[in-house]
Amino acid sequence: MAEDIAGSPGPSRRDVLRRGLFLGGAAVVGGAVGAVADHVAEHHDGGGDTVPFYGAHQGGVVTDTQQNTVIASFDLHTTSRDEVVEVLRRWTALAASLAHGDSTTVPIYTPKDVSDSYSNTTQISTTSDSLEAWQVGPSRLTVTIGFGRGLFLSEGKDRYGIASRMPEELVELPHFAGDELDPAQSDGDLFLQACGDDLQVVFHAVRSIARISPDVAALRWTQIGYSPSNKAGTPRNLMGFKDGTINSNAHPPADLDSTLWAPADGQSWMRGGTYLVYRRIRMSLEHWDRLQVGDQEKVIGRQKVSGAPLGARDEFDALDLDTRGSDGAPAIPVDAHVRLAAPETNDGAVLIRRAFAYNNGTTQFTERWPPWRQALEYDAGLLFLGYQQDPRKSFVAINSKLAINDALNQFTTHTASAVFAIPPGASGPGHWVGETLFA
Amino acid sequence: MAEDIAGSPGPSRRDVLRRGLFLGGAAVVGGAVGAVADHVAEHHDGGGDTVPFYGAHQGGVVTDTQQNTVIASFDLHTTSRDEVVEVLRRWTALAASLAHGDSTTVPIYTPKDVSDSYSNTTQISTTSDSLEAWQVGPSRLTVTIGFGRGLFLSEGKDRYGIASRMPEELVELPHFAGDELDPAQSDGDLFLQACGDDLQVVFHAVRSIARISPDVAALRWTQIGYSPSNKAGTPRNLMGFKDGTINSNAHPPADLDSTLWAPADGQSWMRGGTYLVYRRIRMSLEHWDRLQVGDQEKVIGRQKVSGAPLGARDEFDALDLDTRGSDGAPAIPVDAHVRLAAPETNDGAVLIRRAFAYNNGTTQFTERWPPWRQALEYDAGLLFLGYQQDPRKSFVAINSKLAINDALNQFTTHTASAVFAIPPGASGPGHWVGETLFA
Ligand code: HEM
Ligand code: HEM
Repeated sequence: MAEDIAGSPGPSRRDVLRRGLFLGGAAVVGGAVGAVADHVAEHHDGGGDTVPFYGAHQGGVVTDTQQNTVIASFDLHTTSRDEVVEVLRRWTALAASLAHGDSTTVPIYTPKDVSDSYSNTTQISTTSDSLEAWQVGPSRLTVTIGFGRGLFLSEGKDRYGIASRMPEELVELPHFAGDELDPAQSDGDLFLQACGDDLQVVFHAVRSIARISPDVAALRWTQIGYSPSNKAGTPRNLMGFKDGTINSNAHPPADLDSTLWAPADGQSWMRGGTYLVYRRIRMSLEHWDRLQVGDQEKVIGRQKVSGAPLGARDEFDALDLDTRGSDGAPAIPVDAHVRLAAPETNDGAVLIRRAFAYNNGTTQFTERWPPWRQALEYDAGLLFLGYQQDPRKSFVAINSKLAINDALNQFTTHTASAVFAIPPGASGPGHWVGETLFA
Repeated sequence: MAEDIAGSPGPSRRDVLRRGLFLGGAAVVGGAVGAVADHVAEHHDGGGDTVPFYGAHQGGVVTDTQQNTVIASFDLHTTSRDEVVEVLRRWTALAASLAHGDSTTVPIYTPKDVSDSYSNTTQISTTSDSLEAWQVGPSRLTVTIGFGRGLFLSEGKDRYGIASRMPEELVELPHFAGDELDPAQSDGDLFLQACGDDLQVVFHAVRSIARISPDVAALRWTQIGYSPSNKAGTPRNLMGFKDGTINSNAHPPADLDSTLWAPADGQSWMRGGTYLVYRRIRMSLEHWDRLQVGDQEKVIGRQKVSGAPLGARDEFDALDLDTRGSDGAPAIPVDAHVRLAAPETNDGAVLIRRAFAYNNGTTQFTERWPPWRQALEYDAGLLFLGYQQDPRKSFVAINSKLAINDALNQFTTHTASAVFAIPPGASGPGHWVGETLFA
């Protein structure tokens, strides 16, 4: 069965696709989509749990953390600027309608020059919703669209005539000590971050958007993340520590214009946008769980139960990096994660973090530190989603230090990475994300 | 860095472990666990969302579907019956306390004959909770424990003197047409199914139980699944169809004694237990989404929006396999999934299904049917968890037919598989799952 059609003596892929999917010997094109689509439209749920889609900024950046995320990246297989524009227009329209709890009503897009090469897409099952999230409600869905460097320059080519508009802030990250990045799970030309309180709703959004234009924008990778409900306060990461106490979407710095939103002297089309650095960071949970709580606290620099900085009392007390314990040593050790990451030790550089846990099951893993055990271990940890005004000043500067000195490194490995420009929001119906860049 | 300690010239693994984890040059054993553990114990949340753990049957079988599941399988690395008993005692006690919303208070178990071989487990971080789900509440957590064939017979060896008590129902499955099973994601000696409405709580349960006895019972695989909220009625699977309308945990058959619970003439220790067949079934969502809704309905044999059988009106109308359409053909086609799976065409054999979606991201995939496209596709689909009185009469009989004739096969591939005996529940504190087998 497993046979590449290209090398097969049978009907060509194109022929098979023209005739439709092969189903029990009968070709299956045409049919009763219209009726179902209408039925669905009547019942959409636009109630309670809705995060507005349109606005000066895209949602999903400082929006309160939802319980689930699916992030996805796409490679562009086209040299036509118009096709990219058409994809972004449709992605935006569909994202808006999903965020408002409407059914999928945006037609699938098959551009002329590829319409013949992959499937009679326009003939089969175009407007209908895959329906698995139907009537579940928007569940605080946000969809955030991002642009990778490849949109501007791909293998040195300016495919869409916009290379001159590539922001300086959209850097290529340097290699950091300890990185073990999987290229197949990293980077990409376009990016989607869907977040919501029901994973079925969230994946439905990515799947629906991905199927609008599979010929033009092909999936490169997807990654799922989750957060516990925040009914016990700041959600905890898989190390059991509160994550997001400060400089996070839940507790952002006071002045977002100087920390989060794209700089006033940068590319004007990015005004109201921001920059995302994504890192998938595996945790050696098996090792972490064998460490004394007191020592875990020294690694992080905060108390486990309360989340308070070491040497302080309450979660939201300020970090005091100068406090010393009775032994004369700094209460927050010199190699503690929060000391090395805090703005106070980074010329004021700030990262607005939106943290999710991820859990990809178990895989063989070689530990980075003695006893270098090779074993089946959890492939679980943190989806680091850091939003910032300028990754050169924030992520790159901070992580260059962390990668070398952070005590946390003994328990973490960065396994995937990407940087995306997150353009400003679409201001209302008819507008689209990317309009400021392309229009 | 990546160096197997066995071949390393440095300190032996045993030495390193005796000295504790290597942390910034300092060994880290001993410390302040007690204080945190006490603090935690004060605050446990035993409120609202609790499914009782103790009872004649284990929870998680006919319990209402929760939104998340983590299933995990373990290999036993011991020849001592006492050690297996000790593991099951502790697993049960911990499962009960987690289900009741208590913190992790069961000590980690390091049996004497392995205490020297892996880590000073009893010295480090034993009773403390990893804390990531602390105060989130039990979230309807259930933990279900199962036994694989390997518990009874492992490579022909009766390691624990219980081979004669292996139930006939605990069959080895035959190879089915189209199976593409990954052995590393299949089978196992012991099994855990944790279900609950918060993934962090659910994974916390598996992680906490797995760390009680890592030397004796080592993780073999884990798999995460989810279900949308059922506020829109029967939850839908990723094909967009309602899944669980009939013969499911939500809508079980009337007589569970003759369909679900272990047979009266079987092994007496299994009285009150049941048998689980697990299959991870990948869906070719990309193909499915290109199929007309009308044709999707012919594949399943039910209407997509309402869930009603073809030829009927309402979701819960009985399947009428004899109804014919105006064209004279059966309303439910001869190769429709529900026709072939229904008890009516299987000598009354019943499966109680507890369905979750899974989504493991994207991987390279070669499609099983024309155009045999090789592409990056979703590794997503269904976690089939079928509970039944006798897998020989139910799963094996039904799937032998489905694997050959089901129209659904064009869109599905079975990629992982396991069968477990699910013993009766523990009747109260002090009792344990497996007591009827071992005591
Ligand atoms: C698995 C990896 C990581 C874990 C488990 C982790 C965990 C934490 C925790 C528990 C805190 C303290 C609570 C809070 O302030 O929210 C924190 C703070 C922080 N982390 Fe991380 N982190 C990780 C990786 C990173 C990386 C890669 C960066 C940036 C390069 C980073 C930047 C920060 C920053 C900026 C803070 C706030 C510090 C402050 O302003 O006080 N973290 N992290
Ligand atoms: C990805 C694979 C599968 C999908 C998407 C799927 C989907 C469905 C759907 C939509 C229904 C109708 C709704 C309902 O009655 O709950 C159904 C019914 C059923 N399925 Fe599946 N199924 C799959 C695999 C299997 C397998 C492998 C078996 C057993 C070997 C099975 C056994 C059944 C049974 C017994 C019923 C109920 C039939 C009746 O009593 O009317 N299914 N399935």
